[in-house]
Amino acid sequence: MLTLDKIYHASYILKEVIRPTDLIKAPDLIPDSKLYLKTENLQVTGSFKVRGAYYKISQLTEAEKAKGVIACSAGNHAQGVALAATKSGIRSLICIPDNAPISKVEATKKFGAEVCLVEGTYDDAYKKATELQAESGATFIHPFDDDMVIAGQGTIGLEILDQQPDIDAVIVPVGGGGLISGVAFAIKSLNPNVKVYGVQAAGAPSMKNSLEHKKIETLPNVHTFQDGIAVKTPGENTFKICSKYVDDVITVTDDEVSAAILTLLEKQKMITEGAGAAAFAAALFNKLPIKGKRVCCLLSGGNIDVTILSRVINRGLQMSGRLAELTIALTDKPGQLMGVSDIIAKLGGNVVSINHDRADVDMDINACYLRISMETRNQQHVDEIKKTLVNNGYKLV
Amino acid sequence: MLTLDKIYHASYILKEVIRPTDLIKAPDLIPDSKLYLKTENLQVTGSFKVRGAYYKISQLTEAEKAKGVIACSAGNHAQGVALAATKSGIRSLICIPDNAPISKVEATKKFGAEVCLVEGTYDDAYKKATELQAESGATFIHPFDDDMVIAGQGTIGLEILDQQPDIDAVIVPVGGGGLISGVAFAIKSLNPNVKVYGVQAAGAPSMKNSLEHKKIETLPNVHTFQDGIAVKTPGENTFKICSKYVDDVITVTDDEVSAAILTLLEKQKMITEGAGAAAFAAALFNKLPIKGKRVCCLLSGGNIDVTILSRVINRGLQMSGRLAELTIALTDKPGQLMGVSDIIAKLGGNVVSINHDRADVDMDINACYLRISMETRNQQHVDEIKKTLVNNGYKLV
Repeated sequence: MLTLDKIYHASYILKEVIRPTDLIKAPDLIPDSKLYLKTENLQVTGSFKVRGAYYKISQLTEAEKAKGVIACSAGNHAQGVALAATKSGIRSLICIPDNAPISKVEATKKFGAEVCLVEGTYDDAYKKATELQAESGATFIHPFDDDMVIAGQGTIGLEILDQQPDIDAVIVPVGGGGLISGVAFAIKSLNPNVKVYGVQAAGAPSMKNSLEHKKIETLPNVHTFQDGIAVKTPGENTFKICSKYVDDVITVTDDEVSAAILTLLEKQKMITEGAGAAAFAAALFNKLPIKGKRVCCLLSGGNIDVTILSRVINRGLQMSGRLAELTIALTDKPGQLMGVSDIIAKLGGNVVSINHDRADVDMDINACYLRISMETRNQQHVDEIKKTLVNNGYKLV
Repeated sequence: MLTLDKIYHASYILKEVIRPTDLIKAPDLIPDSKLYLKTENLQVTGSFKVRGAYYKISQLTEAEKAKGVIACSAGNHAQGVALAATKSGIRSLICIPDNAPISKVEATKKFGAEVCLVEGTYDDAYKKATELQAESGATFIHPFDDDMVIAGQGTIGLEILDQQPDIDAVIVPVGGGGLISGVAFAIKSLNPNVKVYGVQAAGAPSMKNSLEHKKIETLPNVHTFQDGIAVKTPGENTFKICSKYVDDVITVTDDEVSAAILTLLEKQKMITEGAGAAAFAAALFNKLPIKGKRVCCLLSGGNIDVTILSRVINRGLQMSGRLAELTIALTDKPGQLMGVSDIIAKLGGNVVSINHDRADVDMDINACYLRISMETRNQQHVDEIKKTLVNNGYKLV
């Protein structure tokens, strides 16, 4: 059973491997807020997962340690278990679905794990891990539904209270519920007045649904780029703990999280992954009753693939009017491209790419499309350019 | 005159406004290294500049404070002075060249400064600031060549020695020389055995040249995206201090800094601007004799424009073989596009964009170009795809 003692013990044991991450005051991120960021994205391995994994492994018997550990994950849990096992001097085998980004596989290997790539989905990899566990007798390290793992994650709750004893509320991303279970248990045990809120991806609200219906429910599927919290079924232990200690669970959309990632990147100079920015997205988009309160958003991880980050940045730039794409229907005669270029240049738009295309079947044979991508100042600037083009007789598509 | 006392005093005064930024241990960033990162990119205003500006302003007389302060900058100094003045309850006016990114202007205003946009370059804005200073009698806050400003920046040196007393070497980016002067003076005063190295942009080596020729030299122009250290002439005070206390100054190219930014972003989850990553770039590309030593790279700032960051990421991805662009010359007959797509898909490349173009004057009338942009695993993967295309009769351009 989870106890505050276990969490304190985990805190002591974890000193060997983790960094007590900074709690950064960031009131400027949201007007009139008293915002704090708990930066587990700057944790070793790039996420909080190493806490639970290391504490769990530290409590195994010598006989268990001799047989090694096994886990199944395509993400942060894989890296956490790999580093935790290596630091404990024992072997680890991680089953990873073969469609996982190559960067995650490489990182897991780099931390010292043996990797078994399994054809198919997470469920296939999980099945394979169960088989391999039965054969080898290695200990299976569950990503969330385990008291020791939960106790390890709970150390973050102790750190937050230590770093800002007068905090009013803590917002935590929720997948299977391991992180929030530990944090809520630690915080509520010490100060029941502190609110603890959970955030899930709108495309994966398994804990939210289960809590609302007061029983564990499984989603038929999940759809979100917040892969760290895309979990179909909450754990049994975590469901019980959340039922008792969590004040509310709400959801954020992928677009809201994209905007949150871009804000943290630009204003706070920090990278967060989808799940890592979910708690901040909830605060940024006023999803919770926290006005005027001292609020800590837990940034759980920063392991975002750069190609995805690149898309998130582009989407965020487009949404805020700093990158615009126009399609203009031109009559195919000389001088048109120059006319358009001239208008955009005079209004201060910075053209990034141009595509001039003549062969569209549904168009007038003399017409063509001009696709322009340009850097702009804000939405108002985009509108100004569009309006001027229209006023000069160009047809926007 | 700069004294250790002044730096200690600055350290005390600065407690009111700055964050004592984390010194993060990051041995995994460079194999076999003992690397530490001093994270001034996470400082309030996103750079160290607020330290010098706030200490300088704190030491003004009441009569001086009543007349306000004035500064000239398109970047971090502007934001530093703005916040420092606002926190001190005095007025600030910042002259900014009108070609500065809108984001920098907005940030400066947000910190409470009045902004005067000046048509032209930095030199024009500087001239305007001098004129306005003469009219108003406000105190001009120099970005680097001022003992109080240098003492403020020097507090970073004290923090590094406090956080890691056994550090062997510190690497610091150098523009006008204010930051490295303060840091080198503080560190060498306390422990002359610690090496202090400077890093300049290859396109702006003003301090390096001046130190080599033992006299202050002005560059005819500077060319680098590391705008925070693109300075034509070192300061007189800073030149003297660097001559005495700095062990060596070397340069890094913009490409090396791009790779450093991408590495810090991916592995360390932190955003740095060009100048902010220069010190780490020097370590990453073995520019200094630091093998086996405990080395601190000073990440001086994180205020990079996201559109530039986006380009840096793309360039870094291309250099590491994770984003590839191919141009293929095809005979213009049906099935060719499908053939190419098929090969790329089978080898696991992920096509991002395709451009199919027929109208090139220097080509056979039956030929056309196919430009493909795709996500790949690494350079080896790119080479494999290219080789397979060639083996199947396609002609790469």
